[in-house]
Amino acid sequence: MTAAEARASFRSGLVTPTAGMAPGHTQANLIAVPADWAYDVLLFAQRNPKPCPVLDVTDAGVPHTALAPGADLRTDLPAYRVWVDGSLTAECPDASEFWRDDLVAVLIGCSFTFESALTAAGIPLRGSNVPMYVTNRSCRPTPRLRGPLVVSMRPIPAELVARAVEVTRLMPAVHGAPVHVGDPSELGITDLSRPDFGISVEIRPGEVPVFWACGVTPQAAVMASKPPFAITHAPGHMFITDALDTDYRI
Amino acid sequence: MTAAEARASFRSGLVTPTAGMAPGHTQANLIAVPADWAYDVLLFAQRNPKPCPVLDVTDAGVPHTALAPGADLRTDLPAYRVWVDGSLTAECPDASEFWRDDLVAVLIGCSFTFESALTAAGIPLRGSNVPMYVTNRSCRPTPRLRGPLVVSMRPIPAELVARAVEVTRLMPAVHGAPVHVGDPSELGITDLSRPDFGISVEIRPGEVPVFWACGVTPQAAVMASKPPFAITHAPGHMFITDALDTDYRI
Repeated sequence: MTAAEARASFRSGLVTPTAGMAPGHTQANLIAVPADWAYDVLLFAQRNPKPCPVLDVTDAGVPHTALAPGADLRTDLPAYRVWVDGSLTAECPDASEFWRDDLVAVLIGCSFTFESALTAAGIPLRGSNVPMYVTNRSCRPTPRLRGPLVVSMRPIPAELVARAVEVTRLMPAVHGAPVHVGDPSELGITDLSRPDFGISVEIRPGEVPVFWACGVTPQAAVMASKPPFAITHAPGHMFITDALDTDYRI
Repeated sequence: MTAAEARASFRSGLVTPTAGMAPGHTQANLIAVPADWAYDVLLFAQRNPKPCPVLDVTDAGVPHTALAPGADLRTDLPAYRVWVDGSLTAECPDASEFWRDDLVAVLIGCSFTFESALTAAGIPLRGSNVPMYVTNRSCRPTPRLRGPLVVSMRPIPAELVARAVEVTRLMPAVHGAPVHVGDPSELGITDLSRPDFGISVEIRPGEVPVFWACGVTPQAAVMASKPPFAITHAPGHMFITDALDTDYRI
């Protein structure tokens, strides 16, 4: 399935996590906010580049991106979340009815993008989505946005952890090297089997939990900071761009 | 000379290009604009990451940066330029009298930062400043900011060009790999001996001119787009941070 075919299927109503879909194509987190909040989102991203690597920013009212000509950001993701004053008010497969002419859409790199590279390097991955956890680490705030770091976790065989670091460090635009390897309690995660987002994955004997900064972090900032309005992707249900994973490899 | 000592000497009135000063410490371009233009600068930077890698952004009215605690961005650069409606109205060693409470300062990576790495890799560099050229390439615009790509040029022995690429590609936060190697006419540069900024450097037999994206690009956007007010560094006269060059190496 190509990226365009995947987007067309979502536009037609398919709701599914996007891990592993249209392999080789860059996936992105979405956060769309009113124009008068767009500066805060960009500043928050600049101050927290590991969880929030910005891939593209639309002009206000324009639901299109240079990363996928012809795509419509209002319909071409499998699932959206709508936030009012920091509270989740809707989760839906089509955001058209909620879209506003003053929205600026910010597309943020997603770790699904480096999964092809990990697989190509001989690192096995499991699961149809990825588990994500809110950590005890605070992001560097802006005057109006603050919140915790969110991480994704993948179990990696101990002998391949270094290889996984080597592969992902060369892709800083899609979160880069892990932020943490091993002991989840150090991140304030008490139970790996109960992720805050996504689907839990078993850690098998000989595997180490490896944590990468996650593009759901801006959603956590929305929850904590309560901007008046935002539309985001649903965790794990990403925007699939036409850009190639290799475009983001150093 | 440490970074703090260099800043103190500039605060005391020393005016000099900063190439080679406080080696090992990251140098930065400065562009300070009124808060209502800060979004445009960040968006322009996001859309043009090679010339405009953002290292830090201050809150409005705060002339201090996390990259050099104790430093004052109004006084601690060797030379400033003051812009009104896109026209250069002053060049001065102290910007205090021009500073405004609504200014947001954006610090942008500088290729001086990778000069230590080039030298350590056995690549000889010459000159007390670097020549910079306005090219015929347009940056990707924002609704209010547009302008040409500016590049810096270093003559590199032909057999070391590949090595120079290898070294600098691992430092994307300070412009990364060159944008062009060889023929300057392709960039619209008709005479290498007459740079638009900085000091010309002779190309010796066996050397190739190598061009990196340059943090003076936002100044060129100011000239082209005429925001009502801006303060920048004078080309080649950078802000020397406490951050280490190696902090920006992948």
